Amino acid sequence: MSDERLRQQITFLVEADKLKSILRQTPLADNSRPENSAEHSWHLALAALALQEYAPHGTDVLQAMRLVIVHDLVEIDAGDTFAYDTAHHETKAERELAAAERIFGLLPADLQASFRGWWDEFETQQTPSARFATALDRLQPLLLNMHAGGGSWTAHHVVRSQVMRRMQPIQLWMPAAWPFVLDVIDRACAEGLIAEG
Amino acid sequence: MSDERLRQQITFLVEADKLKSILRQTPLADNSRPENSAEHSWHLALAALALQEYAPHGTDVLQAMRLVIVHDLVEIDAGDTFAYDTAHHETKAERELAAAERIFGLLPADLQASFRGWWDEFETQQTPSARFATALDRLQPLLLNMHAGGGSWTAHHVVRSQVMRRMQPIQLWMPAAWPFVLDVIDRACAEGLIAEG
Repeated sequence: MSDERLRQQITFLVEADKLKSILRQTPLADNSRPENSAEHSWHLALAALALQEYAPHGTDVLQAMRLVIVHDLVEIDAGDTFAYDTAHHETKAERELAAAERIFGLLPADLQASFRGWWDEFETQQTPSARFATALDRLQPLLLNMHAGGGSWTAHHVVRSQVMRRMQPIQLWMPAAWPFVLDVIDRACAEGLIAEG
Repeated sequence: MSDERLRQQITFLVEADKLKSILRQTPLADNSRPENSAEHSWHLALAALALQEYAPHGTDVLQAMRLVIVHDLVEIDAGDTFAYDTAHHETKAERELAAAERIFGLLPADLQASFRGWWDEFETQQTPSARFATALDRLQPLLLNMHAGGGSWTAHHVVRSQVMRRMQPIQLWMPAAWPFVLDVIDRACAEGLIAEG
């Protein structure tokens, strides 16, 4: 180990601390405040451990955990793009690519390649591990919105068809949880937390 | 899968959300607010990925990530016990054991056994993976305190000998990072962030 190498790794870890200040549109389950992207990522890693039996065949749980731990780091530069915000989604890819270059570029070259590869794998959703990670990333805010009494659904007047489309990775890649998700959506619609349409 | 089983897993994940409201004594690196235990756990998992080359021989990185993701969940009931608070440490074990029973007890029996095993493994520090996880759990607040201009060191008038004792897992189990840690401590003492003694 060289001193310089460790110093680069530490610099990256200190920079990563900023993810704790990136706020999401989803509130905590008790609706006390918005969730931040660092604690959201922790929650997904915990969900990967608790729900791994529902993962697609061929999922590597360590890989899924790597993906959820690093998947939001680009938001330090690019910000959190709200799932139902079509306008900002047009520029999302470009902003996040530049962020990945800068943030993972703080690491030594070999680690930069690994972390960048994990982020790319999450984004492209082509592997079982990435599909499991994506399904968790859709399920977790559903749980928080449900318990918070509507959360980002009511705040942004989200309609049923939008939520159904957003939850599709669960239907496709974690089908055992789909009846539960449908039930939540039905109840949220009945309670007026999600608008019909 | 039974509906009841999934419902238990979801109940556990929603309960776990409360870890985001457990505040630590360490501030964020920018000193803007106290860190919470959920985002702290995420930061350790990220550190496990970035620093795994310094882990003790025989470390299983997936296992180390499991340990850091679950290690603080008991704080939902037991609270965060400040590292340098001797009085509260006397009752810590008992409070945390009761918390582990209740919180992991929300899970189906097989998962309860797994999660409880991971928490026990972290606590007893007998495996390479647990020792790596513990070393990271000591290094990360050192980085935050350093960048925040003193953090919990200055707030609680912590002295050099206390920090040296607290950091010993790094010296023992991640010795390659020890010169860096010593350098941080030396500089923090020189700047008056850690009291001599």
